[in-house]
Amino acid sequence: MTYCLAIQVDHGIAFASDTRSNAGVDYVSSYRKLHRFRTGPDRTIALLSAGSLATTQEVVSIIRKELRSGAEENLDTCSRLFEVASYVGRVSQSVQRAHLAGLGRSGVSGEATFILGGQVRGERPRIFLVYPQGNFIRASEDTPYLQIGESKYGKPVLDRLVVPSLSLDDAIRLSILSLSATIKSNVSVGPPLDLGIYRTDSFQPLVTGRLHATDPYYAKINESWNQALADAFVALPNFRWPVVEDQALESRSVLPPVTPR
Amino acid sequence: MTYCLAIQVDHGIAFASDTRSNAGVDYVSSYRKLHRFRTGPDRTIALLSAGSLATTQEVVSIIRKELRSGAEENLDTCSRLFEVASYVGRVSQSVQRAHLAGLGRSGVSGEATFILGGQVRGERPRIFLVYPQGNFIRASEDTPYLQIGESKYGKPVLDRLVVPSLSLDDAIRLSILSLSATIKSNVSVGPPLDLGIYRTDSFQPLVTGRLHATDPYYAKINESWNQALADAFVALPNFRWPVVEDQALESRSVLPPVTPR
Repeated sequence: MTYCLAIQVDHGIAFASDTRSNAGVDYVSSYRKLHRFRTGPDRTIALLSAGSLATTQEVVSIIRKELRSGAEENLDTCSRLFEVASYVGRVSQSVQRAHLAGLGRSGVSGEATFILGGQVRGERPRIFLVYPQGNFIRASEDTPYLQIGESKYGKPVLDRLVVPSLSLDDAIRLSILSLSATIKSNVSVGPPLDLGIYRTDSFQPLVTGRLHATDPYYAKINESWNQALADAFVALPNFRWPVVEDQALESRSVLPPVTPR
Repeated sequence: MTYCLAIQVDHGIAFASDTRSNAGVDYVSSYRKLHRFRTGPDRTIALLSAGSLATTQEVVSIIRKELRSGAEENLDTCSRLFEVASYVGRVSQSVQRAHLAGLGRSGVSGEATFILGGQVRGERPRIFLVYPQGNFIRASEDTPYLQIGESKYGKPVLDRLVVPSLSLDDAIRLSILSLSATIKSNVSVGPPLDLGIYRTDSFQPLVTGRLHATDPYYAKINESWNQALADAFVALPNFRWPVVEDQALESRSVLPPVTPR
């Protein structure tokens, strides 16, 4: 599996992904899932990819080739980012169609999902989720993030902390926490992490960095977070057991003889 | 959906479940998923249930009836808790088989999953997960908890904080946090929460309590946790962006002009 997310804040966009790819538990490898593109000076575009590695690699290769060759439709010809999302969806659908018969015979899915993020001059920065079916949705003010892949483990920390007023540094730290929660709970998502930020109206390529599991910063942020959670947990008040009517046993239970902490 | 969990600590077992049941988003209701039984004085047995409500209700009804009527095999005749797990699995399978043809015609699954917990005199307290197929596993020292239903959202907080040396009060507070994370991120899991504790070697019925969303304690624990997480988050160090070789763009990126927090 995979876990990628993008957070859209007032100051720009934070991108993050793991790098683990697996075909069964006996073939685990590391692949980049954060893709940048050499577009014109009026736009910055990046993609995060999840799903069939064969499909995502072919989709990214076609998008790069059509951009370089100046195809009739390419990343530079779209005048709005939603048109880029639609274009990515069409390329994804055409790649999936091309392999449908072959994959179908093996009962394997060639589906792929993308997060598209960036800015085209004249618009605010935006993030889109492009479904395997080629349609897409945009993140909103109320839900300023998008996730693809193994998204459930890392969602609670986002839902507790994400707001559009986060700085880009905050958004990257939050992304690392969301990824680290997922990595801790699911071996199909693994380090190193690829991180990237785009600053609103900069129209510069994404600034990217890779965070390895052996990096002292990764250990530090995990230790600090674990310690803070443990401290916060100890400080929480205890549940008060009520004396309740006991439906199942048709009797009244008593206050519990719990062991003090 | 549903989310139930049981944590096995040195002092006993904590049980927790949500109460939301739904057949589609337009039929949402509230049902008890934590079940206790009037067993003999040498044992305490409880079940948490997830999956088809029809199946889980029928399974619990049959188990109660066979216990009351003193059937050849019932909760009181098993001399080990793993035999109870096997018995619950067989009842579950027989209920599912009885409705297989009818459900199959509608393309609906009658599968159900259970967590069995308790103690039979002569053994330590134990928790088992009974699969829809009737087989079962036991929690271990290394992973002293079991989850059924919508389990991913609430797993990271368990993986960060659970240890067998937690007190029963700790285990209940942790269960509430795990459930509250799930409730926040997934509308198919909802309050009120049913909570229960069993104290090692007490052989008393579970002490139970219900926690409503309107209870000031529920608001308090959520507020405190959110605030502690926000404080901890602000205190985390920033990721240091490296000056890295830029593979995608074949150029070097510069240190980012990020907005200070």
